[in-house]
Amino acid sequence: MAELKYEIIETVGVLSESPKGWTKELNLVSWNGRDPKYDLRDWAPNKEKMGKGITLTEEELKSLKSILTNF
Amino acid sequence: MAELKYEIIETVGVLSESPKGWTKELNLVSWNGRDPKYDLRDWAPNKEKMGKGITLTEEELKSLKSILTNF
Repeated sequence: MAELKYEIIETVGVLSESPKGWTKELNLVSWNGRDPKYDLRDWAPNKEKMGKGITLTEEELKSLKSILTNF
Repeated sequence: MAELKYEIIETVGVLSESPKGWTKELNLVSWNGRDPKYDLRDWAPNKEKMGKGITLTEEELKSLKSILTNF
C-alpha cells in the first residue's frame, strides 16, 4: 500500500476496546490532506497500526443515528 | 480472496445511495455460516459486489448510538 498520511482532527467516541488494546473508534480524519471525513475503524494502541474501516459523510452519520434510534 | 459466503439476516437500515446505485447499509450478516454480526458496508446494486466495511457487535452498536446522541 502506498504511504497514507492521515490526521485525526477529532475523536468523536470510542466504541470498544479489545483485550489486546485495539480500539474501535469514530474519528474525524483527514486522509492525505483532503477534507476530513468521519471514519469508523479499529486502531492498535497508540495508533501504531490501523485496521479495517469505513468512512462516512456527515449526512450518512445522521442517517445512522436515525436508524439506531429504535435499536 | 477465498470464497466468502454470507447471508443477510436483516437489513437494519440504508444510510445513503450513490449516483451509481451503491448503497451504504447496516445489516445483520452471517459470514461463512457463523453467528451473525452487524455490518456497515457499501454494496453494489442487487448485492452483486461488496465494498469496504466493518463489523460491529451489538454492544458496539449500542456504544455508537450513545456516541451519536449529541451529534
